[in-house]
Amino acid sequence: MTQQLEGKRVAILATHGFEESELAVPRAKLQKQGIEVHVVAPEAGSIRAWAESDWGDDYAVDRRLDDVSEHDYHALVLPGGLFNPDALRQDEKALGFVQAFFQAGKPVGAICHAPWVLINAGGVDGRRMTSYPSVAQDLRNAGAEWVDERVVVDNGLVTSRKPDDLDAFGSKLVEEIAEGRHG
Amino acid sequence: MTQQLEGKRVAILATHGFEESELAVPRAKLQKQGIEVHVVAPEAGSIRAWAESDWGDDYAVDRRLDDVSEHDYHALVLPGGLFNPDALRQDEKALGFVQAFFQAGKPVGAICHAPWVLINAGGVDGRRMTSYPSVAQDLRNAGAEWVDERVVVDNGLVTSRKPDDLDAFGSKLVEEIAEGRHG
Repeated sequence: MTQQLEGKRVAILATHGFEESELAVPRAKLQKQGIEVHVVAPEAGSIRAWAESDWGDDYAVDRRLDDVSEHDYHALVLPGGLFNPDALRQDEKALGFVQAFFQAGKPVGAICHAPWVLINAGGVDGRRMTSYPSVAQDLRNAGAEWVDERVVVDNGLVTSRKPDDLDAFGSKLVEEIAEGRHG
Repeated sequence: MTQQLEGKRVAILATHGFEESELAVPRAKLQKQGIEVHVVAPEAGSIRAWAESDWGDDYAVDRRLDDVSEHDYHALVLPGGLFNPDALRQDEKALGFVQAFFQAGKPVGAICHAPWVLINAGGVDGRRMTSYPSVAQDLRNAGAEWVDERVVVDNGLVTSRKPDDLDAFGSKLVEEIAEGRHG
């Protein structure tokens, strides 16, 4: 698999209030496989993490959303948190970026509350997926088949429920990125 | 109208992370009209406010959800915030409490992100309403007619978008409470 991951680049799209572990853990896992990972955000400089019950550390933004496109990456990862997806789902540029990965058949990972962004990007109708339990009804209403599993893979879309699922989420992400584009 | 408000009791259902102004401002407005207002929460003791960009003050819980029913009140108010409705929409007892107000035709007010709770309680299909803009797609997918107005009244259901709308929200709440049950 290592050979299939050579030269791959992954964008983690986030803004203030992303759940810290849901960015840091997948990033470390992908980097360990030799994948180049960029934190992409609407703002330059840094974005502030949410760490379970309060604000956490500031994380450097590697690329501004304005300066990149889906063509620059092989896959997209969306961490959760509450403030982060609540803001991104209202950001037309962020939604366009997400839509481009779906249209290109490139792997997309979303964990916890991040599937809210997919609802507004229009990527969930007819998809088998999971999320933080509070988001389940919103996903069902948007046409998804919601299941309560640690990790769900549906044709390149990888979803998980919460930080406890990060091991399974990261492993499936790596598999899907190795497979490349999906039909 | 003051006569119609005599002896009225209103429950504000909330938990940790409610947006402070969205509880404090309607409560003060209703109390000024002589209405008795209780903060009702799943937990005893106190609940912590969210004040725009960080945790705010602790607010005393007047009644535990376990100890009250819809019969004790003439109307229900749901403040927003992110953590508060995210938790309440997963709480079966909270959803049952909300459903009982709808079934009884009693006025229900919901502001900002609070309409998420109504999605899970099953109270939005076919209703004309508003919310914080991030929640609009979830409400449309649940069958609501979403509009971008300061305050929307639909047969006893009063909704507003954000703290800036609190004046209009409070005034319409008082009107609906004065009218009493809706058909």
